[in-house]
Amino acid sequence: MGQERGRTTRRRLIGAAVDCLAERGWHAATMLEIAERAGVSRGAAQHHFPTREALVVAAVEQLAEEQIAELRRRSAELPTGRARTLPVAEMVLDLYTDVKFRAALDLWVAASHDPALAAVLAPLQARVGKEAHRVVVELLGADESRPGVREAVQATLDLARGLGLANLLTDDGRRRAQIARQWARMLETAV
Amino acid sequence: MGQERGRTTRRRLIGAAVDCLAERGWHAATMLEIAERAGVSRGAAQHHFPTREALVVAAVEQLAEEQIAELRRRSAELPTGRARTLPVAEMVLDLYTDVKFRAALDLWVAASHDPALAAVLAPLQARVGKEAHRVVVELLGADESRPGVREAVQATLDLARGLGLANLLTDDGRRRAQIARQWARMLETAV
Repeated sequence: MGQERGRTTRRRLIGAAVDCLAERGWHAATMLEIAERAGVSRGAAQHHFPTREALVVAAVEQLAEEQIAELRRRSAELPTGRARTLPVAEMVLDLYTDVKFRAALDLWVAASHDPALAAVLAPLQARVGKEAHRVVVELLGADESRPGVREAVQATLDLARGLGLANLLTDDGRRRAQIARQWARMLETAV
Repeated sequence: MGQERGRTTRRRLIGAAVDCLAERGWHAATMLEIAERAGVSRGAAQHHFPTREALVVAAVEQLAEEQIAELRRRSAELPTGRARTLPVAEMVLDLYTDVKFRAALDLWVAASHDPALAAVLAPLQARVGKEAHRVVVELLGADESRPGVREAVQATLDLARGLGLANLLTDDGRRRAQIARQWARMLETAV
């Protein structure tokens, strides 16, 4: 298998895994179903990802990387100084409202009943969480040596995940936009 | 079936449903399994709750009521004035960290793949969310006619749900306590 072709197969499997998880959940997202959706043989799928756990770890990592790259790309267009806080707050609080969050959430809930899955997801959660924290500090231009700033940034991401939950069954965009405005005001004082 | 005995059966079914959901998830929590765990015949279970959806709605409502009653009970012992903000923030941010939240979360995720379940949970989420909001306003002694106060209270509950997620696979209590301290400072300014 050529290196280029291998990378393409990997990418397709990861994409199919994300779609499967988001649409049908961890219970229904079998290796066979994911491979079929990716248009890849089961053997080739298992060559890249020996277990379903390995595949979903790769998928979550890729989702997180894409999200962070997207945040950096969009933030490059933002104004500097105080005018930056509101658009950054809006961007961060929207982070977990798309179908990809649904896929990740499904995994987390499944892991709470499944020790093998929890064993791979818990360290991943720590790693991905740290990276998200770092990028929000950078976007806000926050000085973490000042007391409370670190916790205010953490709260921003935890709030964003809570807003992701609130958006799971209904479109919560209007309420979220109002919360983002108030949140930006609170952040300006705290950060 | 006597009224008292009917109430007991109902209560046992709801308790068993919560345990089943928390431990094994919506997929595994069949009516039969819940009835067995409650020590109730399947017929009697179906007399009280014709569908699994009806049972979980009753379970979520009861959980929410218990949580609110517990908040009110504990807050009666708190100091008044500004000294109240930190313990209230701690109580609210701990709200979604126990096994009952895991049961509710499992339902919400299942509902995102299951329109019949979503149809009963979405209005329930609105109702339960409003009630939680009302009690937090009351506990903080917040004046919602002031700009931003309503959104700051909403953010408190969304943050609490995000912290519940962060606590799903690991014990996040230490970090959460630090966030609560910073959150209380931000709330004091905002509310």
